Amino acid sequence: MSQHQIDITEPLIKNLLEDKNLAFVATLMKDGSPQITPTWVDIQGNEILINTALGRVKQKNVTRDPRIAVSIVDRNNPFHMVTLRGQVIDQITGDLADNHIDKLAKKYLNKDKYPFRAPGEKRVILKVKPTRVAYI
Amino acid sequence: MSQHQIDITEPLIKNLLEDKNLAFVATLMKDGSPQITPTWVDIQGNEILINTALGRVKQKNVTRDPRIAVSIVDRNNPFHMVTLRGQVIDQITGDLADNHIDKLAKKYLNKDKYPFRAPGEKRVILKVKPTRVAYI
Repeated sequence: MSQHQIDITEPLIKNLLEDKNLAFVATLMKDGSPQITPTWVDIQGNEILINTALGRVKQKNVTRDPRIAVSIVDRNNPFHMVTLRGQVIDQITGDLADNHIDKLAKKYLNKDKYPFRAPGEKRVILKVKPTRVAYI
Repeated sequence: MSQHQIDITEPLIKNLLEDKNLAFVATLMKDGSPQITPTWVDIQGNEILINTALGRVKQKNVTRDPRIAVSIVDRNNPFHMVTLRGQVIDQITGDLADNHIDKLAKKYLNKDKYPFRAPGEKRVILKVKPTRVAYI
């Protein structure tokens, strides 16, 4: 297993993030206990983008404590995986977040529009800066 | 999404744990930050069994702080999933742990013996008691 401080543009990592693999994201509850949710994921440069909605558990968690962990396993090879720890360094709402969830719907569902939007839901991009990455 | 305090014997949950889906397990590093690893998983009664080796990051983490989160997505249906939070209430080593990793190798790899054992490695079962479960 290789360990890097910050480089996720290495093809073995980037390909895992660009392919339609689910990411599993751990955040911290108010009492400091861990919480996990599966989520869609995207890579932009050396950062990971996660798209959620304002008020969801993980969005509230990273607003309180930005520390996060992400794990992705290749859907075609369970022994090819990346796991990383990092921080949410920015939260982006508005048109950028709305367009981004449509981009992810295209990637994961091959649909032009995200089909699960709830009334009044405000999408938000969580921008994750990795501080430690391991892959195999 | 249904939420239960402790019952994972509900068939929709139990089947996810009994099928050969990978589980993603979050534990807490010494500084309180979250860490994730994918792992094999087993269910015994109303508890989840994870098999790791003494000295691995997650084993050291749960020895320091037993709080844990587990997420499993159906490999055949990405919208069927269970996510839970709980505590590691026991760690079991010796023959029981050695036999248990062989059982998991049978489940996940269809091999009678776990093929990845490292020299000197001591296997350990982490027994997880769920305190909160959600599934969809």
